[in-house]
Amino acid sequence: MKNTFGTSVAVTIFGESHGEYIGAVIDGLAPGIDVKEEYIQHMLFLRRPDGKISTPRKEKDEFKIVSGVLNGKTTGTPITILIPNENVKSGDYSQMRTVARPSHADYTAECKYHGFQDSRGGGHFSGRITAALVAAGAICKYALAQKGIAIGTHVKRCAGISDREFGDLLSDIHLLNQKTFAVLDEPRIEEMTQAILEASASGDSVGGVLETAITGMPEGVGEPWFDSVEGLLAHMMFSIPAVKGIEFGLGFSMADKKGSQANDPMKLENGKIVTVTNHNGGINGGITNGMPIIFRTAIKPTPTIFKPQNTVDFQTMTETVLEPKGRHDPAIVHRARVVQDAAAAIVLCDALALRFGTDWLR
Amino acid sequence: MKNTFGTSVAVTIFGESHGEYIGAVIDGLAPGIDVKEEYIQHMLFLRRPDGKISTPRKEKDEFKIVSGVLNGKTTGTPITILIPNENVKSGDYSQMRTVARPSHADYTAECKYHGFQDSRGGGHFSGRITAALVAAGAICKYALAQKGIAIGTHVKRCAGISDREFGDLLSDIHLLNQKTFAVLDEPRIEEMTQAILEASASGDSVGGVLETAITGMPEGVGEPWFDSVEGLLAHMMFSIPAVKGIEFGLGFSMADKKGSQANDPMKLENGKIVTVTNHNGGINGGITNGMPIIFRTAIKPTPTIFKPQNTVDFQTMTETVLEPKGRHDPAIVHRARVVQDAAAAIVLCDALALRFGTDWLR
Amino acid sequence: MKNTFGTSVAVTIFGESHGEYIGAVIDGLAPGIDVKEEYIQHMLFLRRPDGKISTPRKEKDEFKIVSGVLNGKTTGTPITILIPNENVKSGDYSQMRTVARPSHADYTAECKYHGFQDSRGGGHFSGRITAALVAAGAICKYALAQKGIAIGTHVKRCAGISDREFGDLLSDIHLLNQKTFAVLDEPRIEEMTQAILEASASGDSVGGVLETAITGMPEGVGEPWFDSVEGLLAHMMFSIPAVKGIEFGLGFSMADKKGSQANDPMKLENGKIVTVTNHNGGINGGITNGMPIIFRTAIKPTPTIFKPQNTVDFQTMTETVLEPKGRHDPAIVHRARVVQDAAAAIVLCDALALRFGTDWLR
Amino acid sequence: MKNTFGTSVAVTIFGESHGEYIGAVIDGLAPGIDVKEEYIQHMLFLRRPDGKISTPRKEKDEFKIVSGVLNGKTTGTPITILIPNENVKSGDYSQMRTVARPSHADYTAECKYHGFQDSRGGGHFSGRITAALVAAGAICKYALAQKGIAIGTHVKRCAGISDREFGDLLSDIHLLNQKTFAVLDEPRIEEMTQAILEASASGDSVGGVLETAITGMPEGVGEPWFDSVEGLLAHMMFSIPAVKGIEFGLGFSMADKKGSQANDPMKLENGKIVTVTNHNGGINGGITNGMPIIFRTAIKPTPTIFKPQNTVDFQTMTETVLEPKGRHDPAIVHRARVVQDAAAAIVLCDALALRFGTDWLR
Repeated sequence: MKNTFGTSVAVTIFGESHGEYIGAVIDGLAPGIDVKEEYIQHMLFLRRPDGKISTPRKEKDEFKIVSGVLNGKTTGTPITILIPNENVKSGDYSQMRTVARPSHADYTAECKYHGFQDSRGGGHFSGRITAALVAAGAICKYALAQKGIAIGTHVKRCAGISDREFGDLLSDIHLLNQKTFAVLDEPRIEEMTQAILEASASGDSVGGVLETAITGMPEGVGEPWFDSVEGLLAHMMFSIPAVKGIEFGLGFSMADKKGSQANDPMKLENGKIVTVTNHNGGINGGITNGMPIIFRTAIKPTPTIFKPQNTVDFQTMTETVLEPKGRHDPAIVHRARVVQDAAAAIVLCDALALRFGTDWLR
Repeated sequence: MKNTFGTSVAVTIFGESHGEYIGAVIDGLAPGIDVKEEYIQHMLFLRRPDGKISTPRKEKDEFKIVSGVLNGKTTGTPITILIPNENVKSGDYSQMRTVARPSHADYTAECKYHGFQDSRGGGHFSGRITAALVAAGAICKYALAQKGIAIGTHVKRCAGISDREFGDLLSDIHLLNQKTFAVLDEPRIEEMTQAILEASASGDSVGGVLETAITGMPEGVGEPWFDSVEGLLAHMMFSIPAVKGIEFGLGFSMADKKGSQANDPMKLENGKIVTVTNHNGGINGGITNGMPIIFRTAIKPTPTIFKPQNTVDFQTMTETVLEPKGRHDPAIVHRARVVQDAAAAIVLCDALALRFGTDWLR
Repeated sequence: MKNTFGTSVAVTIFGESHGEYIGAVIDGLAPGIDVKEEYIQHMLFLRRPDGKISTPRKEKDEFKIVSGVLNGKTTGTPITILIPNENVKSGDYSQMRTVARPSHADYTAECKYHGFQDSRGGGHFSGRITAALVAAGAICKYALAQKGIAIGTHVKRCAGISDREFGDLLSDIHLLNQKTFAVLDEPRIEEMTQAILEASASGDSVGGVLETAITGMPEGVGEPWFDSVEGLLAHMMFSIPAVKGIEFGLGFSMADKKGSQANDPMKLENGKIVTVTNHNGGINGGITNGMPIIFRTAIKPTPTIFKPQNTVDFQTMTETVLEPKGRHDPAIVHRARVVQDAAAAIVLCDALALRFGTDWLR
Repeated sequence: MKNTFGTSVAVTIFGESHGEYIGAVIDGLAPGIDVKEEYIQHMLFLRRPDGKISTPRKEKDEFKIVSGVLNGKTTGTPITILIPNENVKSGDYSQMRTVARPSHADYTAECKYHGFQDSRGGGHFSGRITAALVAAGAICKYALAQKGIAIGTHVKRCAGISDREFGDLLSDIHLLNQKTFAVLDEPRIEEMTQAILEASASGDSVGGVLETAITGMPEGVGEPWFDSVEGLLAHMMFSIPAVKGIEFGLGFSMADKKGSQANDPMKLENGKIVTVTNHNGGINGGITNGMPIIFRTAIKPTPTIFKPQNTVDFQTMTETVLEPKGRHDPAIVHRARVVQDAAAAIVLCDALALRFGTDWLR
């Protein structure tokens, strides 16, 4: 469904860049789950533009929960989170209304909404909306953590610079969830920042790769054929703006391997069946096998750049050159990782509730 | 939903490797669409193991349509396709019942189905079930072709050997849809075949990459945020066994590009807005832009290999070594491309019917 | 979704009156559930036209289960049931193709399917398709019975004659499930039969009211607001041909009562909270309260009658008079009760699996 | 799905009686539809307690639309409506937290939400939430009106007093939509009011029957078998608190008719196929036939009464007698009719968008 994702736990998002509120409704979360406002605030903080390598738009992200939570716990009925848009100057983007920014949704929104779309600041397509997804996902992520399921995402690659591989997952995830710039190998942060600022200085932008690890997932979750855990996660991840690819375990690099290199041998460990390697990223036949879920997404460079680009005015149907002034995020990969965490948490809460019942998460 | 995919046009698949029938129900296709049995037969033929580089199991795939088609046209009510399983020797796989084949669904099926799964030949997880998906998708693909929407997939890479890039899409798609081994650059077929047979001779298997092109899609299709065309296609593609990754347009290689390199400038062509390049693979903001949809999937090497592998007997909970005898597909990438075509066709029929109404496809 | 009902447990039905097979796919039933073929056969037998007060079409309803069941138990993957159509003479109904039978779906099918519908014997709209629903529901009903949930439906009223009220529910349900003509007060059967035959003799048909009781439902099932148990059951029941109304508990007769007469006082019984009366039919606020679920449906008289009726030929767009010859069911209410049982069982299996997880029914 | 209804047009509702906001998100409405705030205000006004025969709780229902509408028109993206709860004294209902009010959702909410439900004022189960449904439905109803589809509901019966039958539907619908007490036969209003006040004076409450007429629906809408128009409307209507039954056309009174009395003969009128009578309420085989849709719901008497009632304290598990003081709605039937209009409008918008595409309503 368009702006609702999920079956047993379903999240609906709404709002535009320049509207009064953006927000989310989470329906179906079990009653009695702790809702920590500080944790939501923490995740919103991590997602926020930092003013250095991001757009200077200041967002306080002061959210409020207006339904579904009582005395700090979920009631079991829809949880609604509102986030006011505070720093809105709708004049800022007025030129963009009919001149399509290349590789943005301007033209496709026109095709679908026939001129009625709110194009101020990207409208409903604005990355701003991900704050709503993050707030909803923060509640889910916190709930999962109480059940021993941890999620963490690092900037695996940005502007051509790579982070180190995941090591001990639990400690790495813990580390990432504290960091504003989620890179495991500390010196790489400065390198990436420099590369981003260089691109920015020339009016350009950069992309990257995000890698997520999820530990503690029970085995036996996923509904073949069509509701494989991979399918569900992939479906959701492509909702994150700029994601153009996803891969699980070894992913595309499996394509060049032999079966004997790619297969994960199995063994017993403390009376539990585990795999020796985890090339399949914790999923076989669409069902979790109890090993960590590992996936990566490809984040394209921010399409807003400050160089002249050939484009079309779709109202006058004339070719033109677009050369915006001002500043915009030259990179979003370090912030998108927060969205990826949140989005994954939503998907897992739903899959778990479907598998084990609506009370499982309490 | 588990074995049903789609909203307006929905496909349900069923069956096991060693059951009496596998099959599919297609619900919601517009009335009055031509159903060409030869075309279904053609696609099933292309999917079929060829006996040379595939398993020797002979499948005639003599399907029958038992509902929803009258006088060669869809009635608008559910279309049911049955494909009998003819070459079934259930003894063949008896050892596998409790000894998990590494990187297969044996262990995860046990976790989910608690010993009641049909493990003969992989049961419901068998690649055999893709024949049902192909038959259903063949009807959809043919229907789309009547509306000017063409789909073709080539083996972009197999066993480390690459096919050429897509050139003129329409002629390449036409070419691919006739080929048993869907490689555009003819000499590469023999090279890939040799590499597969070499792997096979050593008891091993190979993987690859499939690339799909879709032309003629109307612009304005896709439902942001969650039912983006990328999300829907990705969701479905991960249902194809062995798919471990998907990317659209430049995909993961976008991660290392600058915005100025990745963006697709726009222009007018015959009064229509087009992009000069197609790095975004025909989709912006989750909505089609009228350019060809391009995506690639990563196909892992077939997990069934004929080398000793460490594993576990999940009934006795003891470690053991699995070394199957016999023959199995050392590669499925060349056959999986037919499934990919079919699966894409199903997704598009659904998205188009949702967008333009249930009669649009007639 | 059109021909698929359910979320966690989903049933898809297919087929036409004069096609090769009708059938159903049940997806999502827990693994390890006993599937008793005799029980399915029993319910199909009860639904079958009896040749006395029903159409003389002979149906053996020899079904086969072609997937999802192994060694008499569900595997957890889709269960497919096929029922061949054996007694098909497509010439029988040829006059009806373009002359709309009043109050049948002939004209509305034309509006939706534009002439491509299979109109032989009513096609996909034929009451025949309910055999598929009954077969699927029989598996569900048997599974529920193993969990202590019993379902029974009686002909509360037919041709103006009323059955007695429900008494001890468990014994009444047991009685009904053995009867071919499900009336609790034995002498009423002969009276109803006579009334039906009299109507039939004059070329006419009769309707009635069906009342269903469900015992043993756990409390706390149902998902307010929109997926109330009442809403789900009602949604499904209107799929049964001829159903034009549904009411729960006292239903429409509550409209004339005072709150003090309609409310159900509560008390403790063996340490469990129960209601003294059950005017609300086991559901408050859309959620089960542990008391028996009670509902009634209105069954309109069979629209096929053998008297002249004014109608329209929708192909030639001319008014005409329809006066069919032959014989048809002058009453279906006594057979529809089997469908109602089956349909209710499907709804409950789904609601329970959603609430308590996919393994709950094993 | 719990608090989301619909497929192509989906409405999500949220909020509690004593929370900060209640509200709704409407997703999937076509872009470019006029949104008249006065019309929403008008429908909210009609739903509001009037202080005479209703609860004295004063609600201004000052809503605001915070997303999805720009310059008075839908943008095509989610429309969010917020309605603040202004007259909240949470102490009012404190006794009810653990003592179940008979025939309310108190005990079933406890079963489902395990003590975490917000029980102040009924929480998420409060009739108050219907204001959100009314606001969402008002937008849908107005949109339908622009396409020639009119909806009106009258209090067919209340406290034992009947309104007259529908006459000319269009003028009756017009009349009803202006009335605060929707009774066609003016003198009946005073009679019903007196009867309600009498019941109220004795601490009791009354129920009734609501009848809805919908004109202008295109033929060919509805998706057999399971998504019949009857099934969809019924599913939704049971979400309205106090609805215990629904019937279409002649409904339950068809049960005692002969086929020759119940069938609707057909004829041509101005080149269009119509039925002479409309006993089937505009729907055959689950599909609209172009005639007005007619249905009735049974509204049970408000369960809150001011007489002593036996009940149970579910926390202490002791029997007790509940005798609330204060005032409450002795009747809601005259206000529920606004909810019924709104709910019907939502269902129809969805069914039409599914049938004719997402742009149909513009």
